[in-house]
Amino acid sequence: MHSIGSTAIRRMATRATRMSTAFTFTKNVTQQHLPLRLGLTQPLFNSARLYATDKEKVVAYTVDKFPGYVRNENFKELTENDVTYFKSIVGENGLVYGNEDDLFAFNTDWMNKFRGKSQLVLKPKTTQQVSDILKYCNEQKLAVVPQGGNTGLVGGSVPVFDEVVLNLQGMNKIRGFDSVSGILTADAGCVLEVLDNWLAEKGYMMPLDLGAKGSCHIGGNIATNAGGLRLLRYGSLHGTVLGLEVVLPDGTILDNMSTLRKDNTGYDLKQLFIGSEGTIGVITGVSILTPHRSKAVNVALLGLESFEDVQKAFKQSRIELSEILSAFEFWDINALHMFKKHATPKEVMQSEYPFYVLIETSGSNKDHDDEKLTTYLENMMEEGVAQDGVVAQDESQIKNLWSLREGFTEALGKEPAVYKYDISMPVPKIYECVEDMRQHLKDGGVFGQEDSPVTDVVAYGHVGDGNLHLNIAAKRLDKKTSSLIEPYLFEWVSKHQGSISAEHGLGVAKNEFLGYSKSPVMIQLMKSMKNILDPNGILNPYKYLPSS
Amino acid sequence: MHSIGSTAIRRMATRATRMSTAFTFTKNVTQQHLPLRLGLTQPLFNSARLYATDKEKVVAYTVDKFPGYVRNENFKELTENDVTYFKSIVGENGLVYGNEDDLFAFNTDWMNKFRGKSQLVLKPKTTQQVSDILKYCNEQKLAVVPQGGNTGLVGGSVPVFDEVVLNLQGMNKIRGFDSVSGILTADAGCVLEVLDNWLAEKGYMMPLDLGAKGSCHIGGNIATNAGGLRLLRYGSLHGTVLGLEVVLPDGTILDNMSTLRKDNTGYDLKQLFIGSEGTIGVITGVSILTPHRSKAVNVALLGLESFEDVQKAFKQSRIELSEILSAFEFWDINALHMFKKHATPKEVMQSEYPFYVLIETSGSNKDHDDEKLTTYLENMMEEGVAQDGVVAQDESQIKNLWSLREGFTEALGKEPAVYKYDISMPVPKIYECVEDMRQHLKDGGVFGQEDSPVTDVVAYGHVGDGNLHLNIAAKRLDKKTSSLIEPYLFEWVSKHQGSISAEHGLGVAKNEFLGYSKSPVMIQLMKSMKNILDPNGILNPYKYLPSS
Repeated sequence: MHSIGSTAIRRMATRATRMSTAFTFTKNVTQQHLPLRLGLTQPLFNSARLYATDKEKVVAYTVDKFPGYVRNENFKELTENDVTYFKSIVGENGLVYGNEDDLFAFNTDWMNKFRGKSQLVLKPKTTQQVSDILKYCNEQKLAVVPQGGNTGLVGGSVPVFDEVVLNLQGMNKIRGFDSVSGILTADAGCVLEVLDNWLAEKGYMMPLDLGAKGSCHIGGNIATNAGGLRLLRYGSLHGTVLGLEVVLPDGTILDNMSTLRKDNTGYDLKQLFIGSEGTIGVITGVSILTPHRSKAVNVALLGLESFEDVQKAFKQSRIELSEILSAFEFWDINALHMFKKHATPKEVMQSEYPFYVLIETSGSNKDHDDEKLTTYLENMMEEGVAQDGVVAQDESQIKNLWSLREGFTEALGKEPAVYKYDISMPVPKIYECVEDMRQHLKDGGVFGQEDSPVTDVVAYGHVGDGNLHLNIAAKRLDKKTSSLIEPYLFEWVSKHQGSISAEHGLGVAKNEFLGYSKSPVMIQLMKSMKNILDPNGILNPYKYLPSS
Repeated sequence: MHSIGSTAIRRMATRATRMSTAFTFTKNVTQQHLPLRLGLTQPLFNSARLYATDKEKVVAYTVDKFPGYVRNENFKELTENDVTYFKSIVGENGLVYGNEDDLFAFNTDWMNKFRGKSQLVLKPKTTQQVSDILKYCNEQKLAVVPQGGNTGLVGGSVPVFDEVVLNLQGMNKIRGFDSVSGILTADAGCVLEVLDNWLAEKGYMMPLDLGAKGSCHIGGNIATNAGGLRLLRYGSLHGTVLGLEVVLPDGTILDNMSTLRKDNTGYDLKQLFIGSEGTIGVITGVSILTPHRSKAVNVALLGLESFEDVQKAFKQSRIELSEILSAFEFWDINALHMFKKHATPKEVMQSEYPFYVLIETSGSNKDHDDEKLTTYLENMMEEGVAQDGVVAQDESQIKNLWSLREGFTEALGKEPAVYKYDISMPVPKIYECVEDMRQHLKDGGVFGQEDSPVTDVVAYGHVGDGNLHLNIAAKRLDKKTSSLIEPYLFEWVSKHQGSISAEHGLGVAKNEFLGYSKSPVMIQLMKSMKNILDPNGILNPYKYLPSS
């Protein structure tokens, strides 16, 4: 059925050379939606501010869109005296106050899904300023939302009511770098891509990568335990973050900026703040282990018939590509069609396939890596696991293949409505979950007919991490569809020992569903931790932990 | 000065073939001291039990050897009624009670440095039994020492007074393995080497390795955040441990046995137990990410003139060996001489050098790895960074080179007395610390003369992790030497932002010195954590955190 051995590879190489240098998005895709890997390096909310006046008319407040929130009356309402006091800390230019247009970008998430009503944004420049601010807020019982690049997907970084926004963009200095060990120390407000580019000049790289790299802050990455595209290779932030400087809600500065790979002196408290979404402390400084930048990077795209084949390809890649494997991403044909609906890519393969896999290798020797990848791809073709494949021939083609993978979020953003889920589970269950959901929605009468509200169920994600991004596109949000999806999906995930939030976090979108992934004992212990560290509950209220 | 290029490498290969198949230890080195990597796969305390009667006459009790400990009078003393109750949980065969000979191995650490006075050892077989035991102990205020393989170096796993020993050796079942993702779940009492051998048959390996692998338990490894020889490549347990089952002091079972690579649902509480040395909970189950076993392993030994060259060799290895580098260990000539004093190895190199480096590579393609290593070694010889080198030609020679590195602990154990330190600091500072200590001891009049109490200062460790094992060999322990070393060394480490315990932990040996590595704020927060989780303080008392 397939040509094998070197013939197959020649076919792939030929195919690759036919790739366009860029997928062209249709005109109605506006810049502010672009995943920043594609080249938009300005902080996202700066560009958001440009169109603030238009948007504020249309973006609903979180409390109106998702009824049920009640402002905690223990929190004080902001006064002019408070603002005067904050000016004494950060100066006139260190805050945004009262102007709705200026405040919009800080009150609203980048998807325009969540919107708060804060009247004050503070932009401290030093850890001491953060400490002074929090000490005052704690004493005065002013609620606070820590905010980094504001690129989150679960509404964690914008206020729900009138919380003061504590934005870290002013803390953006690199503090130091040890070129022997590759350990970087930096302010929490440094933009991920800025750090990565800075390290590139020294032959190093950040151990994490994600679409929002051009806007997101390293502090926010750590506060949300960002996963992204390099986790398969370089592991989680719980392993690569060596130290943190954190300001506790009472203003105490917790200095744990260790630059040591090994340090067994007491409970590893910094771990609590990794993934705590700003609810127990504000991360102000970061020490992180960075790997050497790979001299050789290859990217291949495979077309496959089944998710079983995807798994076979993954398992074999871990054996044959082993130490050079740096990404193994998949998507289904629905995702590809969604992409094509909103963009006009030139075709990469002649035929379409039910599944696609993007494989990236990173290594120190181009010849060795090419040989390993070629052998692997030949084996996959020969064994009938892959039906077709292309290998990028240069940096531009590599970017193009990646932009396909990263374009789904953007394409989905063009749909009238999307129910977005980010779940993890044992790899063999991933696509069973998708197929089950399609059938469930059909059975429920909201999918499969021309007049059905649901138009598509699209799946893509990080196979290597067991992480599925499940997106249900719809003509509109409606209660029947919502009630068919939730809690059905969470129950499904829970039944298969999965997580209802693999990498996006809890925020306001998922906190009430935590019980599907964590036991009552675990949740109770989490609440104890919150109470010890933030007894007044001023940090990022209404989020993360369930209210009851 | 040196032959270069392929000539140099031929020299190395020739040299390697002259290596003996084993270093022969002199007869007075007894088996119980042998690092278990060398083939002793029985649990250590079983062999210790064979000579219990002799030893108990000579091993001093911790409270006699290190005066100052006062038994906490809040703890109840064990009664016959308690023993009867425990029998109802674990059965007659699930405990050791009253017999000093039988109790000796559980009361004494493997170095015979610490010895407690427990009258009862409990060996539960299930998590529920652990829960029942702790619930009772907490209610009755019976102090408890959790114990794994009892291979620690800081006295953390043996009692100080009459604490009940809770030994996990009976919980040794593998619970499951996902061969797609490489995620292993197991009881905490599984021996590390047993797990590694089991995984070998499936093409996987444990992500950590250490000398005590034949005795130590995976639960103990995690409770002490063991580092060891593979950390450079596979990272810390904070990254590879995916889930834990932990029994809290009140008997609550915390089920967090996640088998997911990504799970952002709440505070990552399991992290608190990694490295907590049994002070806030007893780890009963483990979920861990295991890497594919490498098809190709190479080991090379280099002789170098200076620690500056060691650093150059390390930095270049991270660039050229990059993704296949799996260990980078160093030792000084004093370590080699110490080894030779107590063993009779055949010479590996013709000359001696001030420094040695052991480099291990692990990869998926033997030819590629050989080429990378050869090129790297050629470069190191050509640039004069390395003065000589050998490459192991087969599995037996690999073992021999490793046994040299792992023999220092054993050789030092033959000295009349040793002050042992395990510190981490920025790599460039490592050897400065050693030289400074030598001079300091000379200046203090305890080293350098024939009648000096200190006979040698020996250094070896994991360069890749900035981890130095500093050993001061002496004719006897004496107060003048002790007071010259401490707190001088801890102050030195603290001044250079190092850690006073890189991987060994705190136990009873280091807890009072925690202030040299952690701030008062951090220590206070640690104490808060301890108080929430173990309000009666029954778990592993007198250890870990400073008493005042």
